[in-house]
Amino acid sequence: MANPISQYPVRIYYEDTDAGALVYHANYIKYMERARTEFLRELKIEQSTFLTQNIAFVVTSMNINYKASARLDDLLNVKSSITKLKRASVEFLQEIYNQNGQLICSGAVMIASVNLAKNRPCAIPKEILGVFQSVC
Amino acid sequence: MANPISQYPVRIYYEDTDAGALVYHANYIKYMERARTEFLRELKIEQSTFLTQNIAFVVTSMNINYKASARLDDLLNVKSSITKLKRASVEFLQEIYNQNGQLICSGAVMIASVNLAKNRPCAIPKEILGVFQSVC
Amino acid sequence: MANPISQYPVRIYYEDTDAGALVYHANYIKYMERARTEFLRELKIEQSTFLTQNIAFVVTSMNINYKASARLDDLLNVKSSITKLKRASVEFLQEIYNQNGQLICSGAVMIASVNLAKNRPCAIPKEILGVFQSVC
Amino acid sequence: MANPISQYPVRIYYEDTDAGALVYHANYIKYMERARTEFLRELKIEQSTFLTQNIAFVVTSMNINYKASARLDDLLNVKSSITKLKRASVEFLQEIYNQNGQLICSGAVMIASVNLAKNRPCAIPKEILGVFQSVC
Repeated sequence: MANPISQYPVRIYYEDTDAGALVYHANYIKYMERARTEFLRELKIEQSTFLTQNIAFVVTSMNINYKASARLDDLLNVKSSITKLKRASVEFLQEIYNQNGQLICSGAVMIASVNLAKNRPCAIPKEILGVFQSVC
Repeated sequence: MANPISQYPVRIYYEDTDAGALVYHANYIKYMERARTEFLRELKIEQSTFLTQNIAFVVTSMNINYKASARLDDLLNVKSSITKLKRASVEFLQEIYNQNGQLICSGAVMIASVNLAKNRPCAIPKEILGVFQSVC
Repeated sequence: MANPISQYPVRIYYEDTDAGALVYHANYIKYMERARTEFLRELKIEQSTFLTQNIAFVVTSMNINYKASARLDDLLNVKSSITKLKRASVEFLQEIYNQNGQLICSGAVMIASVNLAKNRPCAIPKEILGVFQSVC
Repeated sequence: MANPISQYPVRIYYEDTDAGALVYHANYIKYMERARTEFLRELKIEQSTFLTQNIAFVVTSMNINYKASARLDDLLNVKSSITKLKRASVEFLQEIYNQNGQLICSGAVMIASVNLAKNRPCAIPKEILGVFQSVC
């Protein structure tokens, strides 16, 4: 990851695991979303503000690779950076490591700006686009 | 359960279990909500219709007893009936059984009718109240 | 989808949605896993049997495309087929449609056979491999 | 709450909310479990250690009261204390507040010590019982 990186910790609780005694695979997708939200918050972007304007950032595609497994009580670290930026979309690279520095899971997540009222893509609000450019 | 009963099946998948190899305890609360939704649907009450009017049925209290555990691949049956009915609230008794007829979990769930715009209780819409009275 | 297809219905409940009033994006990953489990069950493959032998099918990569959004009360249909089969891995193509036949989400999901005790890949058990070949 | 109290913060993400734009009611049960886990960790009790001995702490009953609603981006505080202690069970009182000090939800949660191999209650391990007594 060459660009500025945001880091976000995730503790693994019972709710995160499954009967295989590992973290359930879909849950990593949630951790990535939490980490993107905190990345935005560090950049002073509050998603709930935009929700009141009927604008949301919606995932349009994900390319996820699972490398190893996390377990109960693990303390993960989600590293996120912006790798592509367009008028109405932004791509995040996200990597999840465990407390031993082992790579658990990585993902390229494409996000589009969507007008919820019209249910269609819209330009990323200017003030946000500028902030994204500063870390890309 | 003396009153008319609605029955709803729930198959247990990996997502439902935890590292103890049992169903995660909070998930039974979801199954009860799914079962209430289907009970309402059987009664021709669609919650999404009321959501567009800013009315939602909100849980105000729950009294849950866990009797046994469910496991991966189990096929549960959620039995629901209405046990109390007031102007702005309704109580459901819900019991979850496994495929062997063993009681896994039971709950008394109190639901209030809420105006989401005002964020406060409101009378249950008349057409719904009448339907509830017919099964109570 | 050219190969034999398994179909699995998913009703959308409150638990599936988020504050954008749409289905939360990570939940589609759960529906795909439920559908693969039912596909295996149709083929007489019970995952819990293999879990007792410390063998699990683990997702190693996913390529997900979100095309449209699902909402509360929608009744989705998950179509699944096997598109690649190797000694220790199998790829599923999965497409999720809503009740109007609109494509909501599609994914290519690569699964590996894993020995949970050793925490490493292992050959797909022969009896399962034969079954997979019959639908591939 | 008279006894020593553990405090645990929970940030609300999209995954926590539902189409009513509020936190989905079953999710508070997860926050309570996370908070109990961290309470135990503060007391140097690691659940994963006991899981390897086939002992788990299992919820046997919950009495939950919902007082107000939490929303996207809220930062909740879960306060937990031990209110009853027996040979094979322990009761927690848990209260969830939002960032304005408003009580959102409270619960009395009864936990039993369970031998997972035998699937039945067992005495709380002595070293843990002693620790519980010190905060009760």
